[in-house]
Amino acid sequence: MEENSNKLTDINELGEFGLIKLISKNIKLKNKSSVLGIGDDSAIIDNSKLQTIVSTDMLVEGVHFDLSYFPLKHLGYKSIISSISDIYSMNAECNQVTVSIAISNRFKVESIQDLYSGINLACKNYGVDLVGGDTTSSNKGIVISITAIGSAKKEKIVKRSGAKNNDLIVLTGNLGKAYLGLQVLEREKQVFLVNQNSKPDLSTYTKLIESQLKPEARKDVILFLDQNNIIPSSMIDISDGLSSELIHLCSSSKVGCQIYEEKFNFDESFLSTCKEFNLEPSTIFLSGGEDYELLFTINQDSYELIKDNDYFNVIGHITENLDLELNGKDSKKTIINSMGWKSF
Amino acid sequence: MEENSNKLTDINELGEFGLIKLISKNIKLKNKSSVLGIGDDSAIIDNSKLQTIVSTDMLVEGVHFDLSYFPLKHLGYKSIISSISDIYSMNAECNQVTVSIAISNRFKVESIQDLYSGINLACKNYGVDLVGGDTTSSNKGIVISITAIGSAKKEKIVKRSGAKNNDLIVLTGNLGKAYLGLQVLEREKQVFLVNQNSKPDLSTYTKLIESQLKPEARKDVILFLDQNNIIPSSMIDISDGLSSELIHLCSSSKVGCQIYEEKFNFDESFLSTCKEFNLEPSTIFLSGGEDYELLFTINQDSYELIKDNDYFNVIGHITENLDLELNGKDSKKTIINSMGWKSF
Repeated sequence: MEENSNKLTDINELGEFGLIKLISKNIKLKNKSSVLGIGDDSAIIDNSKLQTIVSTDMLVEGVHFDLSYFPLKHLGYKSIISSISDIYSMNAECNQVTVSIAISNRFKVESIQDLYSGINLACKNYGVDLVGGDTTSSNKGIVISITAIGSAKKEKIVKRSGAKNNDLIVLTGNLGKAYLGLQVLEREKQVFLVNQNSKPDLSTYTKLIESQLKPEARKDVILFLDQNNIIPSSMIDISDGLSSELIHLCSSSKVGCQIYEEKFNFDESFLSTCKEFNLEPSTIFLSGGEDYELLFTINQDSYELIKDNDYFNVIGHITENLDLELNGKDSKKTIINSMGWKSF
Repeated sequence: MEENSNKLTDINELGEFGLIKLISKNIKLKNKSSVLGIGDDSAIIDNSKLQTIVSTDMLVEGVHFDLSYFPLKHLGYKSIISSISDIYSMNAECNQVTVSIAISNRFKVESIQDLYSGINLACKNYGVDLVGGDTTSSNKGIVISITAIGSAKKEKIVKRSGAKNNDLIVLTGNLGKAYLGLQVLEREKQVFLVNQNSKPDLSTYTKLIESQLKPEARKDVILFLDQNNIIPSSMIDISDGLSSELIHLCSSSKVGCQIYEEKFNFDESFLSTCKEFNLEPSTIFLSGGEDYELLFTINQDSYELIKDNDYFNVIGHITENLDLELNGKDSKKTIINSMGWKSF
C-alpha cells in the first residue's frame, strides 16, 4: 500500500455519497426475500411466513483487531462471519446484512475498497445480500457495525435456553486455533517492531493464522441439521470461548453440565504451538475465542443421527444439578469458570 | 456529574456482561412482533404477513455530536429518533431497535445509564422495543450504531422513487431549527471556553435548542396518512437538509421539481436568530439538517385530504423536466444544489 501512496484517493475527494455509490456499484440482490437494498431510507425484506432473526455486532480498531497484521480485506470477511454466525446459532438461514463503518481520514478510498472486497466475498460465499448501512467519518481508527438478518420457520428456531437434563453436548470442529493464531501474529508484530527487515516463515502456523484472519461460519452444519431433521434443544456460537458459552447456555437453560477433557480434539500444529508458547492445550481449548464453531445440545435419541459424522464431537452432557464441571484426564473435577475473551 | 465523581462506577467493575444485565434489567417487550429480545445470539421478530423494513445509522462523538453541550440522555433519545425516522419515511411502523455502543473508559457506568435512559424514553414514547445490541470498549469517545426495524403492508410502503409529474411536494413542519439550535450551542461553548463562569440566558432559543437536543420523529404524520388512506407517491425524511433530500428524491424518481420560497414557513424565534447570526432564513431552511421532518409527494387528487391540516405545507410540485428549481420571492429562479450536512 505504502509504495502506491501517490496514486491513492482521499475520501474527501469522493464524499459520503460518492463513497456509497462506489461501495454499492456492484451489489446485486440475490435472495428472494431482499425486496429493496441500498439507496433508500431503509431496506425492505419479505420473510413471508417465516420469523425474522436479527443480530448485531460492533468491531473497534485497537480493541477487536490490529491493522498492523490484520489486512483490511480479511477484516471485512471476518466481520461478516462473526455476525452471520449469530444467525446460524439460532438454527436459521442468514439472508441479509447491513454494514456501517466509521473511518478516519488516515484511510484512503482504496482501503475502503479492500475492506468491502472482503465483505462482498463473505456475502457471496454465504449467499447473503448487503442491503444497507451507513458510512461516516471517525476521529480515530475504524469502527464497523454489522446487523445480520435471517429467517426460519418458528418451530425450527433454537435458543440458548432449551437444554434439558441428560441432553448430549455437541461441539463442531476444534477450538483454540484462532486464539493461537493471534498469539503467533502478536509475537511476529513484536519481532517486526524490533527488526523491520524480519521476514518470518509462518508456514508451520498456516492453519492457526487462517483461523484468526479468515474464519468461517458453520452454515454447513445448519444445512446438515436441516437435511437430517435434527433440531438441537439449545445452541450458541463460540465467539468468546467454550467455557464462557457453556456458562451462557447452562444459565439460560437453568441446568448444569459435565464435560470430559478426554473428548477434546487437538490437531498436531495446535499441540506443537501450545508447547512452543508454553500454553496448556485444554485451557486454550476452553478459553480461546473467535472460532465461530457451534455448541449445541440434543436429546440422546438423536445420537445415532450424528455419531458417525466428522462434524460433531460429543464432549459431555447436561445435568439437573446446576454445577458446570470439567472431568480432567487425571480424573479430577474442576468447576468451569468463564475465562472467555472480553473487550472490557 | 463532576461533583459526584467519587461515587461513580468504573465500567471495568461491571464488565461487559454486567453492563448488558444493567442495561436490559428494566426492558420489557411490548410489541406482539417482538418474539425474543436481548439475551440470546439474536433477536426474533414475527412480522407475519407484513414486509420488514430495516434501517441503520452510526453516530460518532466529535463528528455527529459534542458532549460538551449534548447531555448523554438527549444523545440517547436523539439516536433513536434519527433511526426510527428512516422507518417512518417508508410509511411503515417502527417496532424494534438494536443499539450497539463502543465507549471509552473515560465514561462511568452512570454515564451509560444516562445514555440508556434517553434511549429507553424514546423507545417508550414511540412504542419501540429494544431487542438487541452490542456493548464494547473504544479507545476514544463514544460510537453508537442503531438498527431500526419496522413493518408495513407491501402496498403501503413508500420509496423515494415514486414521484410523478405534477405531484405536489409536501413538507411537514418548519425546517432549519435544529441547525440554528446548534449554532447557539456552539457559540455558548466558545463563550464558556473563555469564561467558565458564564451563565447564559438561553430562554429566547428554547425551541431551537430543543429541536437540536430533543428532536421528535413524525410518527403522528404516518398515523394521519394511514387513518386518512393517503399513500404518498414518494417520501424521504429530512436528516441532511431540504435541498439534499429534494435532490435524492428527484434523482431516485427520475423527475425534477419547482419549489417556491414564499411557501417556506418561518416562526419568530427562527427569524430573529437568523438575523442575530447574520444568516439568510431561506438558505437555512433549505440547508439545515437534523430536523427529522418528512418530505413527500402526492397526486394532486389527494390535495383536498391534506389542505386544511396544519401538519402539511405544499412547497411546490414535481416536473418531467429534470431541473430542480427554487422560485425566489424576487421571482428569480435558482438551481437547487445540495448544501446539506455531510460528515466527510
